[in-house]
Order: sequence, then C-alpha cells, then structure tokens
Amino acid sequence: MRKFKINIPSESIVPQLQNAIDQKTKPLGSLGRVEEIALQCGYIQQTLTPVIRNPHIIVFAGDHGIASTGLVNPYPQEVTRQMVQNFLNGGAAINVLCRANNISLKVVNCGVCLGTVWTDNYNLLIERPIAAGTANYLETAAMTNEQLTLAIDAGAEIVSDLSHRGCNTIGFGEMGIGNTSSASLIMHALTGLPLETCVGKGTGANEPFLVQKTETLKRAAQFHKLEELQNSPAEVLQRVGGFEIAMMCGAFLAAAENKMLFIVDGFIATAAFLVAQRLYPESARFAVFAHCSAEKGHELMLKQLDGVPLLGLNMRLGEGTGVALAIPLIRSAVAILNEMASFSSAGVSTAG
Amino acid sequence: MRKFKINIPSESIVPQLQNAIDQKTKPLGSLGRVEEIALQCGYIQQTLTPVIRNPHIIVFAGDHGIASTGLVNPYPQEVTRQMVQNFLNGGAAINVLCRANNISLKVVNCGVCLGTVWTDNYNLLIERPIAAGTANYLETAAMTNEQLTLAIDAGAEIVSDLSHRGCNTIGFGEMGIGNTSSASLIMHALTGLPLETCVGKGTGANEPFLVQKTETLKRAAQFHKLEELQNSPAEVLQRVGGFEIAMMCGAFLAAAENKMLFIVDGFIATAAFLVAQRLYPESARFAVFAHCSAEKGHELMLKQLDGVPLLGLNMRLGEGTGVALAIPLIRSAVAILNEMASFSSAGVSTAG
Repeated sequence: MRKFKINIPSESIVPQLQNAIDQKTKPLGSLGRVEEIALQCGYIQQTLTPVIRNPHIIVFAGDHGIASTGLVNPYPQEVTRQMVQNFLNGGAAINVLCRANNISLKVVNCGVCLGTVWTDNYNLLIERPIAAGTANYLETAAMTNEQLTLAIDAGAEIVSDLSHRGCNTIGFGEMGIGNTSSASLIMHALTGLPLETCVGKGTGANEPFLVQKTETLKRAAQFHKLEELQNSPAEVLQRVGGFEIAMMCGAFLAAAENKMLFIVDGFIATAAFLVAQRLYPESARFAVFAHCSAEKGHELMLKQLDGVPLLGLNMRLGEGTGVALAIPLIRSAVAILNEMASFSSAGVSTAG
Repeated sequence: MRKFKINIPSESIVPQLQNAIDQKTKPLGSLGRVEEIALQCGYIQQTLTPVIRNPHIIVFAGDHGIASTGLVNPYPQEVTRQMVQNFLNGGAAINVLCRANNISLKVVNCGVCLGTVWTDNYNLLIERPIAAGTANYLETAAMTNEQLTLAIDAGAEIVSDLSHRGCNTIGFGEMGIGNTSSASLIMHALTGLPLETCVGKGTGANEPFLVQKTETLKRAAQFHKLEELQNSPAEVLQRVGGFEIAMMCGAFLAAAENKMLFIVDGFIATAAFLVAQRLYPESARFAVFAHCSAEKGHELMLKQLDGVPLLGLNMRLGEGTGVALAIPLIRSAVAILNEMASFSSAGVSTAG
C-alpha cells in the first residue's frame, strides 16, 4: 500500500475566517452549523473566499463472498449488479439526487460478480474490478494483501484524477449486497465496541434475520481474531472488508492528500473513513459528515470519530444519497462567506 | 378578519402515493423523511407527480413598540429598518441563500419605523405598512382590531397573488427587533406553558439581559391577562403580536386556502403559524417545518404542533433562512417520486 502525504492546513487563517463570519449582518453565531462549514471550507482551501468547484459523488460497487451464503443479506447477491445497471441507466436514488442538486456522478465497478455486460448511457462507468467479489470471510480473508493494495490505489487514483481535472469537493457512496456486515465488523474491530452494538438491520432484516446475521458475524470476528486487530486497520480491511470499502478508504486518503473537502455518507462509508482515519488521523480535517443514518451503529461510529452530522433524515440507503443532500448546504455555507454584507458595508448597527 | 376556506385534501390518494414510493429501487422506507416529504407534496397536490413551482420566500418586516424601551432587545430598534435596506441591497443572509438555492424573494414592509426611504435595486419590496411600528404592549394592545384585520388580510393577499401567478410552494421569514418577545408571549398564551419556558436569548441577550427580558414579558403577560386567552388566538395576536407576525399568520392561512405547500421557519414564524393553526387546525396539513432553531422555546413549540423539523443546524437567525435551506430537500424529495425507477422497470430483484 502506497504512502499518502497529507498536509494539515495552516491554522493561522482561522481567526481571519472567524472574524469575516462574525462581521456579517447577523447576530453572532446565529447561522450555527452553516458558519462552521463555511469556516472549514475556508480553512481547507486557505482562503477567505472558498469555492465549491465541480463537486462529484463516486459510487463504489463490489460484491461480497459472504453474500452468496444468504446468511447476512435479505436481498440476493445479484442485486449489486442489477443496481449498478440501474445507476448506469440513471434510475437510482443517487442519480435523481445528483441531477436535482447539480452534482456530477461516477460509478466504479470495484468487483461485481456474474460476468457483467454493462450498458452505460451516460459515461458514468469506471471499470476497476479487482475480482468477481471478495472471498467469504467465514472461511478465509476477504481479499489478499495484493488485492487490498490494488483497491486502495485504484480509489486514490480515481480521486486524484478528478482533483487534477478541477474538482475540489467530493463524496463517496457504495453499493454491495452484504456490505453493512463488513462495516459492522470493521467498526467492532477498530473501536472495540461489542459486536451487538455494531450490527443493525442493513437493507431491512427482520428480527429473526438480525439474530442470524449477528451470530454469523460473531463467527467471523472469532475466526479472524478481530479483538486483537484494533491497531491494525489495514489488516482488518483485508480480512473482513470489501473491495468498494477499500477503494473508498483510498479515495478518502487521496482526497485529503489533494486538499479536497470530502463528505462522508452513511454507515458503510463511515466505516471506510474509520479505516482511513486510523491510518492517517490528519485526514479528518478535510471531512464533513453528511448525515446520521438510521442504521443502528452509525450514530456511535460518528461519535468515535467526533463527527457531527449535518443532517438527520432517518435515511439508510447508502449510494451517497446523504452526500447529495448535504452538498446544497455546503454550497450555501460558502455563499454566506463570499456574498453576505458586513455590518460596516451595509450600515447596520451592532448590538448595544 | 375575513374567513378562510381551507379544504383538506382527499386521503384517498395516500395509498397510491405510498405504493409508488415503495416500488422505487431502494429498501422499503430507506429514504426516511425524504419519503415523507414526497408523500406530503403528492397529497397536497393530489397527484403522483407533484412539482415544486416557482418557490418563494417572503420576509415580513415590522417594528415593535416595546423595542423602543430597550428592555427586551440588545440591538437598537433602527436595525429593523437597516436590515430591510440590507435585504433590498441583496446583502443579507436570506438574499444569499435564496440566490444559492434558486428561490424567489420578496420583502414586505409591514410597518417599519422612522420614515423610511427605501432604495430597492431588485424590485424585492412590497409596501404594506400598517403603522410606524406597533404600540408598546406594556401600556396598551400592540395593535387595534382594525390593524390586526388589515395585517392578516394584507399577508393573505400577497400570498394569493403569488399563487395566482403560479407559485405553489412558499415560506415566510421575518425581521423585527423585539419580535422574539412577541413570539414568546404568543407561545405562552396559546400553549399554557410557563413563560420562562417560552423566553430565550433572541438575537443574543446575555444572562442578566435575559432576566430583564423575562421580567418585562411577565409584566406584559399579567397586564393583558394572557392566561385567560388560551382559546382566543386572534386576541392574543392583537394584544402582544407584531404586524409582521399578523401578516405571516394571514399568509399561512392563504397558502393553505390556495393548496400551497408552505414551509415554517424558526421561532417567530412558528409562533405566527401557531396562531394560524389555532384559528384553522386543518391548515397544518400543508405545513413542512424547516428546522429546529437554537432559540430556547422552539423545540417545545414544534412539539405542541406535532411538527417534526427537517433540519437541526443550530441556527437562530430568522429571515426565512431555515426555509431556504429546506427547499433543496423538498425539491429532492419530489424528484425522487417523479424520476426514480421502480423494481420492475429497472429489473431489480426484491428482498427474499
């Protein structure tokens, strides 16, 4: 796995940014989180006049060996492939939300099963398959070390390429039947929280199914001795991760390396970021958390990352849908910093 | 005060709308609040393909007699006039957020003090002054019965006019130094909650100032015997309201009468809606609550209205800023209903 060179932006601009925000014609602090986002954008871009340029969402899709067992996923594994085709046809939630909010979309095949022949009407597709799905982590590691490296590098390369083409704001989504299970195992391994706390209903398991899912993941955790791997994020990713999660991890790190603002979506994306953050804690400076998902472990995982989500809409879809809804807020925050009048320029009196 | 004719939309379309949403290519219910908003839009417009047409925010501005005493407001009264001029110059937060989110803006002079000569660069201004500020409600009723009627009718007329010109989605903001105090008194009177629960820091009172504000409002509540007026919303509005609050009340009712989706902003706008809802409970069918404000009483007032806010960004600015940030979410929700593929149209398998 390659090294990432992440430079922490200089704090010296923060007082100037805060002062610019405080001089705007509004009571001090009265735009709440919007002001915080404006400040973070200015800090990352090291300017009092940040811009959100050519924002993208990249959906990483890959299959999971565990999904073919049917033990953890109510939807059949082939739904991954079907949903990728749905993305390429423009009919999925993330397509609609990207169109509605003027966000560019790309879809990466990280390793979808079943000999796919895609029809791509919109040039959304980036082909980077590592293999036809991961291995079943009940029996072996989900991927080899070489596959892990390939995946992280591919994710990083895709993001670096977009950065070089002028994109400075990016978010990631995912599709992969079975991937809430990988995310739960990663959360359990890297936070040390009990597995039960980390496992939720995913796409909609009922109670008996949830029991079966939890029991299955307990076996996986024991098989890989996850409790001994809290300080080995890359090994956890290799053993119980997914190709789309590994690519997202590389994508987050490349975004930080390229000084891009990145937006973290729901439970699975946050698990990918958790790995990235444990590898490079400084990457968190560039992160905005889009929303708190309805998936059980997400709120707690956000807390572990000191992440305060922008939205709380009770969503649990993935695909980057939370990112798509957060981007208008981020654009609005930047506009506030750039366009609002100050007390002096507008001739408005301040508080007595 | 004129009668409003508010027809409750037929519930018969709800199962069809729910079915359309459930057939979309996503786990059942996984878009959370976004699905609820999509359903509400379809319900209000009585169609499976709703549209958000020509959305507007109207900022109602008026002065308050109490503000000239300086007992309840840290900012001087003249800030109302200065901020209206700031709106007309395009430099306030609501201007920026409307531009950033493609929302049309209008500003209504409901009765601002100090012999204003406006410079309106953008034809934002609607002149409907009732008087140069309300009377000081420590000494008399804030407005006469005739003024109340004029204000409610003016707000209703402005909204009906926009409806006739094709706008079907609307939100209201306000500006008026001292108007959190009116909102607190209205909340106290109509909910019966203790005054202390209803009074907050407004634009940014410190602790000693908050004590003075609360004591002052206690005198007003006693003077007008508000505890006897819980079932007299119009009288409460007349005694301790403001022109901008009365106009907003009429605006909400006209929006419901014209079958428009309306979006309720922060503490003051919610107090205006509380009056509207107590006059015509059926108006609530048309309401979306934009956000939960950081102003102390707002969360509790929303609960009294069974209002679940879309956003929680810790804002407390007013002006309709919460509405401006909620509108992209509402547009997104409607796009989901109109544009997403169904399981059958996309050839995606459902859960086993």
